[in-house]
Amino acid sequence: MKEYLKHDAWNIIEEGFHASNNEISESVFSIGNGRMGHRANFEEYYSGSTFQGSYIAGLYYPDKTRVGWWKNGYPEYFAKVLNSTNWIGIDVKIDGETLDLALCEVNDFVRTLNMKEGYLDRSFEATLVSGKIVKIHARRFCSIVDDEIGAIRYSITALNFSGTISLTPYLDADIINKDTNYDEKFWIGIHSEAKRTKASVIAETKKTKFQLCSTMKFKIFKNEEELDFESQKIKKEKYVACSADFHVVDGDTLKIEKIVANLSSLNHPTEEILDNSYEVLKKACTKGFDQMLQEQSDAWAAKWKESDITIEGDVSAQQAIRFNIFQLYQTYTGEDERLNIGPKGFTGEKYGGSTYWDTEAYCLPFYMATANEKVGRNLLVYRYKHLQKAIENAAKLGFKDGAALYPMVTMNGEECHNEWEITFEEIHRNGAIAFAIYDYIRYTGDQDYLAEHGLEVLIAISRFWAQRVHFSEQRGMYVMHGVTGPNEYENNINNNWYTSTIAMWCLKYTIESLEFVQNNHPERFTAISEKTKFYEYTERNEWKKILDNMYLPEDKELGIFLQQDGYLDKEQKMVTEIDPSEVPVWQHWSWDRILRSCFIKQADVLQGIYLFEERFDEDTIRRNFDFYEPRTLHESSLSPCIHSILAAKLGKIDQAYKFYLRTARLDLDDYNNDTEDGCHITSMAGTWTSIVKGFGGMRVYDDILHFNPVIPKEWEAYSFKIRFRGAILKIKVDHAKVVVLNESNHDIQIKMHGKDQTILAKAELAV
Amino acid sequence: MKEYLKHDAWNIIEEGFHASNNEISESVFSIGNGRMGHRANFEEYYSGSTFQGSYIAGLYYPDKTRVGWWKNGYPEYFAKVLNSTNWIGIDVKIDGETLDLALCEVNDFVRTLNMKEGYLDRSFEATLVSGKIVKIHARRFCSIVDDEIGAIRYSITALNFSGTISLTPYLDADIINKDTNYDEKFWIGIHSEAKRTKASVIAETKKTKFQLCSTMKFKIFKNEEELDFESQKIKKEKYVACSADFHVVDGDTLKIEKIVANLSSLNHPTEEILDNSYEVLKKACTKGFDQMLQEQSDAWAAKWKESDITIEGDVSAQQAIRFNIFQLYQTYTGEDERLNIGPKGFTGEKYGGSTYWDTEAYCLPFYMATANEKVGRNLLVYRYKHLQKAIENAAKLGFKDGAALYPMVTMNGEECHNEWEITFEEIHRNGAIAFAIYDYIRYTGDQDYLAEHGLEVLIAISRFWAQRVHFSEQRGMYVMHGVTGPNEYENNINNNWYTSTIAMWCLKYTIESLEFVQNNHPERFTAISEKTKFYEYTERNEWKKILDNMYLPEDKELGIFLQQDGYLDKEQKMVTEIDPSEVPVWQHWSWDRILRSCFIKQADVLQGIYLFEERFDEDTIRRNFDFYEPRTLHESSLSPCIHSILAAKLGKIDQAYKFYLRTARLDLDDYNNDTEDGCHITSMAGTWTSIVKGFGGMRVYDDILHFNPVIPKEWEAYSFKIRFRGAILKIKVDHAKVVVLNESNHDIQIKMHGKDQTILAKAELAV
Repeated sequence: MKEYLKHDAWNIIEEGFHASNNEISESVFSIGNGRMGHRANFEEYYSGSTFQGSYIAGLYYPDKTRVGWWKNGYPEYFAKVLNSTNWIGIDVKIDGETLDLALCEVNDFVRTLNMKEGYLDRSFEATLVSGKIVKIHARRFCSIVDDEIGAIRYSITALNFSGTISLTPYLDADIINKDTNYDEKFWIGIHSEAKRTKASVIAETKKTKFQLCSTMKFKIFKNEEELDFESQKIKKEKYVACSADFHVVDGDTLKIEKIVANLSSLNHPTEEILDNSYEVLKKACTKGFDQMLQEQSDAWAAKWKESDITIEGDVSAQQAIRFNIFQLYQTYTGEDERLNIGPKGFTGEKYGGSTYWDTEAYCLPFYMATANEKVGRNLLVYRYKHLQKAIENAAKLGFKDGAALYPMVTMNGEECHNEWEITFEEIHRNGAIAFAIYDYIRYTGDQDYLAEHGLEVLIAISRFWAQRVHFSEQRGMYVMHGVTGPNEYENNINNNWYTSTIAMWCLKYTIESLEFVQNNHPERFTAISEKTKFYEYTERNEWKKILDNMYLPEDKELGIFLQQDGYLDKEQKMVTEIDPSEVPVWQHWSWDRILRSCFIKQADVLQGIYLFEERFDEDTIRRNFDFYEPRTLHESSLSPCIHSILAAKLGKIDQAYKFYLRTARLDLDDYNNDTEDGCHITSMAGTWTSIVKGFGGMRVYDDILHFNPVIPKEWEAYSFKIRFRGAILKIKVDHAKVVVLNESNHDIQIKMHGKDQTILAKAELAV
Repeated sequence: MKEYLKHDAWNIIEEGFHASNNEISESVFSIGNGRMGHRANFEEYYSGSTFQGSYIAGLYYPDKTRVGWWKNGYPEYFAKVLNSTNWIGIDVKIDGETLDLALCEVNDFVRTLNMKEGYLDRSFEATLVSGKIVKIHARRFCSIVDDEIGAIRYSITALNFSGTISLTPYLDADIINKDTNYDEKFWIGIHSEAKRTKASVIAETKKTKFQLCSTMKFKIFKNEEELDFESQKIKKEKYVACSADFHVVDGDTLKIEKIVANLSSLNHPTEEILDNSYEVLKKACTKGFDQMLQEQSDAWAAKWKESDITIEGDVSAQQAIRFNIFQLYQTYTGEDERLNIGPKGFTGEKYGGSTYWDTEAYCLPFYMATANEKVGRNLLVYRYKHLQKAIENAAKLGFKDGAALYPMVTMNGEECHNEWEITFEEIHRNGAIAFAIYDYIRYTGDQDYLAEHGLEVLIAISRFWAQRVHFSEQRGMYVMHGVTGPNEYENNINNNWYTSTIAMWCLKYTIESLEFVQNNHPERFTAISEKTKFYEYTERNEWKKILDNMYLPEDKELGIFLQQDGYLDKEQKMVTEIDPSEVPVWQHWSWDRILRSCFIKQADVLQGIYLFEERFDEDTIRRNFDFYEPRTLHESSLSPCIHSILAAKLGKIDQAYKFYLRTARLDLDDYNNDTEDGCHITSMAGTWTSIVKGFGGMRVYDDILHFNPVIPKEWEAYSFKIRFRGAILKIKVDHAKVVVLNESNHDIQIKMHGKDQTILAKAELAV
């Protein structure tokens, strides 16, 4: 855990240059706009520790994974998010001496991520080896208004010398993935051109043949006066630059404004991509840096207006929740249904930028409650479009008759993860995808989605479960063997309570959904039956038989659900008994030791209780929480939020607060010693949920919003906003009261602490 | 299963060219001498399906395996057996037209592996596209007398033309491993030189920096008269050749004798390797091809004299057992204690040529009974020398105080396998290594080995087991979680009966061995105690406590040992219920399906019963055999032999015979559809054991040899020879009697069918 960032309500601030934490800062200060993103690398050359990363949504490389012992059904490739053209680069030389912070004495360094307005700022004074001192101020952003545009303003002031400063803005597509095997490069140069103040480079990915065209234009000012100058054009296969020298005297400020258009062949035909890039760029340049920055600020203000959470009296918690919301909206805006939410967003390469169950289990509730309804729907449609591939995936593994197994990791619907204990066994993901349909309809009331898309997915998933269980003669019940639950610190276990529970829920919900569609959309029902070859009586009856005879492990004596068969046969220890130098255990213990221990990576039984809490009385929840929480390591970023929500529900507010901080400041404080790899984007949605469902106690049952707010003693007040079926509500909680403001034009019914309340349009309810 | 090879008592014969089976034939007809080996590739160019392979013992490449999700304790590399310099090549052109069997009409093709004399023969008539017909006869061998020498005699007769034949003998080090990733080559050229009739190429492996120097000399004869000729010298970085043209008239025969020395830097300093190779070659050339072939034949005759098994009335079984013995001695001679027995020997790349538990569990009994005592001892010393690395390996996984975990796969004592379920969990290998010490001492009576090397290994292994179990409060017993048994179709299971049984045996044997050494070698005992920091009372007492309270799963109702916890919870099916088109299942089923099924890859409980059969009454053995055998797929080559032995013991002679054929003719008939990858060398020792321990019923208890011979009805008689403590016995069994011939100069006591018998020196006993 590191705590070098300054607490501030609206900004992330690094004061003083923390070179040894630079890769962490590069993750935390990343900027993005849902279409592209860039780690907070420096514009100028830096020879110190850095992890260069620039990412464009949807571009991936199918890397080879054929190493070791192949298993039938393994995918042909592992999708890698592509580190793509570095478009931020501006090399700076002073009388021939390269500006390189690693070699300078650096003073007054401040790096700021301005979350309110959506830009990254950096300023410092650097004393070069030669003794010359320069003052630098750099600001850049990825426009969320013009989402193919990135813009940089970089100024350099001579503080104690006169001489020549050369500036070399460049575009470099000759970059490498950190996670490449055998140092292979994934980009091929297609075209490069350089003119006096503009240049363009097109690179294409191997195999997938995605093209990325980056085109830049820049202006240079001296003391705010635009200069006319000649430049030297530098052109290599995957690199273009324009270099120019300027004479400055002591006190002069040179300023460069570099605007870049990044166009991907996902959105532009390759034969037009170059022309289009100039056009997009021209439009941006017409606006200019200042106007675009103003638009950026306005757009972010609009986003904050609908999604902001305030926390009074705890600036650390305030900063953290805004950071989480900000990063989520930098990563995914929901505009493009082909895109999804990689666990690292645009902040790193890990997890290949691909789609995981995180989307359904963690991100969907956030987007449903803070964005337009179509955003949540797009996340669902993304999976609907992959249904055929999920059916093919299941068929590869020997499942029949249109059973679907959604991939654990995917870019385009194909599985691209190759560890058998995950690929073949961590099948609860199928449950999360079904549950998301239910959750979406529950929240939005959009029942028609079932008929339109949902039911087909549900049928295919239920078919999978029905084939995945088997009848144990010994037990006289159905069992499910060979699974990996959400707790990935157990592999290939039998009768994982969470997986079996969500599987049975799927069967039940599918049966209900079949009835609903049959009754309400009979024609559509017939069409789906024909398309899916659904045999109503045999299949439905078989599902019912399984539902009635499924084995779910529990320990009656302890009054808990058992994570899996044999869990209590393990040596029972508490996390507090582990030597702190061995935590996180995944960095210190061998895998067999982890597997054999009773320690839990992340919520598993508790994840199930969270999803289906209405089924359990509070005592049951408490017994399970008290049993499992002390055994849980929270080494998945997805764990503390679930614990925070359940702790809040159980009235363990102090514990809920502790878990909240852990999830909210996970990256800011580098809890798990891995922020340098990138931020944990998907778990950030869990942070939001910790407040809204945890402290705010928000639920939706029977088409009605419920609230049961509590407040940690560390906070004076907090507020959050949610969209719900056309209304926008603002809930403000302090130690004395709860105020709910109905910002919409119609009355709304809610339940507050279990009591029915009506809030009139544009009115407030104070309780 | 394919049956295209001709049955013959002493030869493996392919009549007619089976191009589509060529890669299988290349495996089966491989030649080797314990130091090097070569697949049965053609000397001349061949554009058809071929898997080129030439291997030198002890040379490996540490290939990168860093792909996917790394686990702590995974090795840095996977050792790959190196496909090395192709030294057999002789390109042939007839009037400029390349001789290439893929383009010719081939007649009278015969490929013969002469096992009696130890050479490979090939002859055919080929009609080229031009209509020219040539007759070829090629013979080659790897000398077991001069084990750095390979020799080829290749003759070509013009049958219907006069013209020019050009011959180009070459050495090609520019070869690639089939299992390379990313097409990387592992060899770097160091030196190449070519003279008129000799040439040399030195190549060095990347990283490991092994050098291989291959030096050739050749002579050419026309119609048996040696020719004087000029040659064109061809020299590339990793390739040398000498090419010469010869005019022939119809009926002329050209003959080339090519002798090659292959010297490895394991045995020669690199600064001398070139000179030494010329010297070694010179010696061989002085002998000449014919004399060397005679020596080869004499040396094989000596081997056969001591190790031959005869089977009368069943030429298929006769051929098979000789093939197995022949391949074993081609692979490992026991001369060099640095070497071991790769599962594919010199016949392919699979399994990396590394050492597995196969050596101890399968090969040791064969070498103990057919070779000099030091051969078995060398196999044990090999592991003793790796003890420190095994301790380091265990430490990496978190085991303490000198506990040792021997690697699953190794070249030099380091683990180089990276699948957690094997690397960390298939720990029964530790048991096999301990059992080998017991087995060696039991067989040879060499009790001193314990004091010398054995006890140190046993202490370290027992320490591992004592830490690997844990006390289950729930059961009130010790349990062992998270293991993979010999049946690799189950992973990460709890309380595998085999693993727990052999672990407990280890503890018990170590305690006995401590007492033995303490009583008989007190000084050595003190030295070992100090070296290993063995705390006599605490450790020994802890082991006893575990021994007294260990949980071993069984089903009392069925009267069987349970392969693992929960085995009976699986859907119980028989192998006969599987659709034959889905067998072998590893080629058709996904891994999770295999894991969830009750089907067994290879003997597991039965492997334990085989090792410890004296503990169990015949009814117990029968119940377990009858339960597990119908569930066993035998998809490991190591399975049928164990079943054959147990079936023979249970009087199920027909079944024993069926299993015998399956193990004996596994490669000859390509049972598992994978012979093209190479032969299953280590399981060949199991074939030998099927006869000697299975049908012959040989055991050693209390320093006495026991025999309980039975004979399959398909055979008229069979005989085998064994060495036992200085004596050589020949046991001949037919349907009427058993005759044991004592070839040694001293009397020997045996038990025949449970009855004590004395066989006088040089005398026979007939029963």
